[in-house]
Amino acid sequence: MINIYELNKISKPALDRIKNRSQNDIDKVKSKVEEIITSIRTKGDSALVQFTKEWDDPEFSFPRLTVTKADIREAYNNTGKEIIEKVKEQISLARTFHETQRQQIRDWEKETERGIIVGEKWTAVDKVGLYVPGGKNPFPTVQQILAVAAKTAGCNRIISCISPKGKNYEVLIAANECGIEEIYRVSGAQAIAAMAYGTETISAVDLIAGPGNPYVTAAKILCQAKVAIDMPAGPSEIVILADASTSSGFDLNTKAKYCAADLLAQVEHGPDSAGIVLTDSKDLAQLIKSEIEKQFQRLSRQNYVKAAISTYSAILIAPSLTESIDFINDYAPEHLEILTENPKTILKLINNAGSVFLGHYNPVAVGDYATGINHCLPTCGWARRSSPVGTWTFMKRVQYSHINQSGLNRLQPIVKTISQVEGLDAHQRSVDLRFEKEKVHVS
Amino acid sequence: MINIYELNKISKPALDRIKNRSQNDIDKVKSKVEEIITSIRTKGDSALVQFTKEWDDPEFSFPRLTVTKADIREAYNNTGKEIIEKVKEQISLARTFHETQRQQIRDWEKETERGIIVGEKWTAVDKVGLYVPGGKNPFPTVQQILAVAAKTAGCNRIISCISPKGKNYEVLIAANECGIEEIYRVSGAQAIAAMAYGTETISAVDLIAGPGNPYVTAAKILCQAKVAIDMPAGPSEIVILADASTSSGFDLNTKAKYCAADLLAQVEHGPDSAGIVLTDSKDLAQLIKSEIEKQFQRLSRQNYVKAAISTYSAILIAPSLTESIDFINDYAPEHLEILTENPKTILKLINNAGSVFLGHYNPVAVGDYATGINHCLPTCGWARRSSPVGTWTFMKRVQYSHINQSGLNRLQPIVKTISQVEGLDAHQRSVDLRFEKEKVHVS
Repeated sequence: MINIYELNKISKPALDRIKNRSQNDIDKVKSKVEEIITSIRTKGDSALVQFTKEWDDPEFSFPRLTVTKADIREAYNNTGKEIIEKVKEQISLARTFHETQRQQIRDWEKETERGIIVGEKWTAVDKVGLYVPGGKNPFPTVQQILAVAAKTAGCNRIISCISPKGKNYEVLIAANECGIEEIYRVSGAQAIAAMAYGTETISAVDLIAGPGNPYVTAAKILCQAKVAIDMPAGPSEIVILADASTSSGFDLNTKAKYCAADLLAQVEHGPDSAGIVLTDSKDLAQLIKSEIEKQFQRLSRQNYVKAAISTYSAILIAPSLTESIDFINDYAPEHLEILTENPKTILKLINNAGSVFLGHYNPVAVGDYATGINHCLPTCGWARRSSPVGTWTFMKRVQYSHINQSGLNRLQPIVKTISQVEGLDAHQRSVDLRFEKEKVHVS
Repeated sequence: MINIYELNKISKPALDRIKNRSQNDIDKVKSKVEEIITSIRTKGDSALVQFTKEWDDPEFSFPRLTVTKADIREAYNNTGKEIIEKVKEQISLARTFHETQRQQIRDWEKETERGIIVGEKWTAVDKVGLYVPGGKNPFPTVQQILAVAAKTAGCNRIISCISPKGKNYEVLIAANECGIEEIYRVSGAQAIAAMAYGTETISAVDLIAGPGNPYVTAAKILCQAKVAIDMPAGPSEIVILADASTSSGFDLNTKAKYCAADLLAQVEHGPDSAGIVLTDSKDLAQLIKSEIEKQFQRLSRQNYVKAAISTYSAILIAPSLTESIDFINDYAPEHLEILTENPKTILKLINNAGSVFLGHYNPVAVGDYATGINHCLPTCGWARRSSPVGTWTFMKRVQYSHINQSGLNRLQPIVKTISQVEGLDAHQRSVDLRFEKEKVHVS
């Protein structure tokens, strides 16, 4: 079912297939998505309704576009207390994480030389749009984690686009518990285009965040002349680094069970998902392979799992830790689990990864649902240049300087010489005329 | 030459023209740029050479693509000591600013509940590409400010694409002083495509930063499925907020001189540039208008200035400070100068701006050339959602968690309930099997 390869013997095509995995190649859907964007820009709401009828719900009509207070009440009335309680707990844990992030985001100021003060202050993006994908099931977890991040940043207007399919009660509850008051039932590229360019009902936002299918990702990429995005998001992926050490009290059989379960949990997301185990132990590799085959039998989403395992997944036996770390930094996994003796020592060597899970009691699933960390993460190697969604995503810096006469006096010769090189004489003049009268001013 | 409007009486078309200014509408150049990108992806270096011969230098040939050590020596041998000295001073001041930024970027870790540790560490983007635009003159200032930011972040491989036109000695010196060892002579959309997708000579990077013309901006936007970018950069712009207070020792005539000079310095960048003055004083407005007309006579780039002033520039008389602040936050200027009594009080109210210049002795030009702050800034209203380029631009967060048995035990019920809602049973199983044996482990 899953292949075992030795990292220093694997064929180039096999290694390339694993490393490249399912890329965000938008070429296949690009022209269709461009059509959708043009329709939304020219026809607004009526195009939104038409697309939604066509692709999501034949019964859809304009009044369904906007979620009402009555819809929210209906959601609470039809959802079990246990679920509502657990959504609230998710939000509470997410707030702790994102508020701690917020505390790291600090204004600063420094006098670098006499009369030259520089600094930066952080402000929230004013209007943001959250994209919450839908499927056969509702995804309240995505709704709450995006909303908590944006709320913690202090965004003024936060809107949410949720799936028009099904009831999505849990998503509505998650949105409401986070204080999101503007929710629309629209999905796909049309939702992204509406948030980017605005329609009669949905007014445009400054930034869009949230994962989606290839159409959504293509729309996010194609609307970037108008709107900022969190990142292009692709299929989910995991790399698990496990060694054969048993000093932490876990025998090889137990380790194999955990590795298999965590890999399977990742690839149940879809047929394009990727699950990689890296180990220096041939024994552990074999045990994990057997465990995957065994545990697979119990799962409900076997089609997805089967496809994902046979395409982009593998167990890789690395000659040593060094090769494993090199592979990880090159692969830049969305999720990285470290099931070794001293996981924190290894964390120090990791440069490129979205979210790292240390310890044997820390499967990705607990991070997805409960730890409070953000699970909207860079995929497809984007961890080489992007960060997880977080409070930072919804904030930005305003740089400033404050210079007095003595500071400008110190800098004037640089401006003079370099503005001549660059041929910008009005630049030079704007500095020089400050010294035309020898009059001392205060500020 | 420049129009004066009262902010509460201005016609909607005039206000819209001013507020919208020259947008980054890539539609006009998109199909041409897509062709260029495809050529680079399919033909590599040979397309680079062909485009460069066609558009930049008919004498260009493949060996000119890569800057050599001999080229660097030639640059030093043919450049005056004064210029070299001033470039070094620019770099030194830029380092102070960007290293102070670097000190704000801190790893953190927190135990949020017993057995649940979360944290983040910052790492540098490994491979980055800097785009240094060229024109009639060389722009060493852009080269050094981008290079200092990337170097301070700790990027491993930093490449620079500079204009193939002219000698660009000062740019080569700036690059060399910053420790950039990989420099290519290629510009326009073809440079962006080469850095994004790679050619035989230029290997692909993870992130591209730097300003450019509409072709460069379009290429940056269109390559975002493959590469991250700093932001789409458009024509330069300034908003100057000035009041009639004279308590800081500046009379109205002096203020008017400064405002006019700083506005002219901004609009000499190009015919699409924008210069706006906001004031509550009709007298000051008139004086600034006269000063602009007077100072204009002395400038060398009169064509650019004339076009820019008559299209997107204006002097706006606001009824009060509140309306001025609202205008600024809506406009989100690249540069904002505050020439009022208590500029720091006003800074507190500014949410959307790239770089803010406080005080009468702080023209934008000194920030461009000497203060050490970054002058690659969000234009066209992108300050609503983007930050100036800086050390942050070249870094990213790796999120992590470390959970032990008691922590997972606390979170298990949330995973159970929510994974059922979302229909992901392998997620639940990966948590549950950690509790199948009641054996206490260490980590």
